[in-house]
Amino acid sequence: MDFYPVVIEKLIEEFAKLPGIGYKTAQRLTFYVLNLPQEEVREFADALIKARGTIKYCSVCGNFTDTDPCAICSNPNRDKSVICVVEQPKDIIAMEKVREFNGLYHVLHGNISPMAGRGPDDIKLKELVRRMNGEIKEVIVATNPNVEGEATAMYISKILNPLGVKVTRIAHGVPVGGDLEYADEVTLSKALEGRTEI
Amino acid sequence: MDFYPVVIEKLIEEFAKLPGIGYKTAQRLTFYVLNLPQEEVREFADALIKARGTIKYCSVCGNFTDTDPCAICSNPNRDKSVICVVEQPKDIIAMEKVREFNGLYHVLHGNISPMAGRGPDDIKLKELVRRMNGEIKEVIVATNPNVEGEATAMYISKILNPLGVKVTRIAHGVPVGGDLEYADEVTLSKALEGRTEI
Repeated sequence: MDFYPVVIEKLIEEFAKLPGIGYKTAQRLTFYVLNLPQEEVREFADALIKARGTIKYCSVCGNFTDTDPCAICSNPNRDKSVICVVEQPKDIIAMEKVREFNGLYHVLHGNISPMAGRGPDDIKLKELVRRMNGEIKEVIVATNPNVEGEATAMYISKILNPLGVKVTRIAHGVPVGGDLEYADEVTLSKALEGRTEI
Repeated sequence: MDFYPVVIEKLIEEFAKLPGIGYKTAQRLTFYVLNLPQEEVREFADALIKARGTIKYCSVCGNFTDTDPCAICSNPNRDKSVICVVEQPKDIIAMEKVREFNGLYHVLHGNISPMAGRGPDDIKLKELVRRMNGEIKEVIVATNPNVEGEATAMYISKILNPLGVKVTRIAHGVPVGGDLEYADEVTLSKALEGRTEI
């Protein structure tokens, strides 16, 4: 059944390919776009092509960047003795927003998940090891606080410790502003374990 | 704070302009796009430009179309004596899927809403009146079953009845497959009112 002109159907399909966007939403977005001024649609299309065309991965840390090395890796004011390891480029944004970390980053582009068949060779671990040039004093593992993230953190500590690098893991605990009542047992037990004197 | 290269920030902004898409989702979509093969992104951008560039409103019924008049208006097999009035082009799709209506359409591109300050002149009502050429025997008003849709339906019947055109309204009642328990009182009362002998 084609109720729509081909060009509309095609645009709906394209929207529906995006993650979390079903056919109904794609339809809604398409109708919205059809009602936009033509130059705004062109701007959107340009943004798509430019972003995809300009952006590459930093050859050092694996972050998205338009220069190589990226702005963080080439910033002379950043502490070159600490590397914070994250799973995805967007995790760097989360860390940067805190404004408390001034070291370098390393993006794994995934995690180790035996369940999903992802081993150490499927993420940028070799690249991390290659960065251990004697200058690096500490590697902070900020992978996600779930099974895969923990497994990845353990693996990293196992391969970097023999190289004389201190490997640390970000603390687990109850989130600030959260409610103890709603904290799960594992988080609470981790919070107890990591308690500090006040 | 710009943690992202400009081109990424720009694409996130563009996605965030779409209805129902907040900054977080826009971020997720942007990262998804950055990981797509370049030609797929180009295809998406092309679909945007082509859809917006080719599609216009049918000068007769106001539906989205790539030809003028649209495929429905120019189809010789459609019944030219009945017009179904809808609020939006997507309502035509809903009607066409039923495969029971073989007449023509008229898209109002909105509804009458005194609350929102939208009067009869803000929708394509004059265009509808202009189509009453003596050939039209019936106008079925299929505006949405809400206050604005009802007000619009009443208004249409008020202006078309003097022209000798029969104006009908789609039936209100309990949805098929629904549960009586969850039907609201207004719907139930409408369903009772419109009861038919079996």
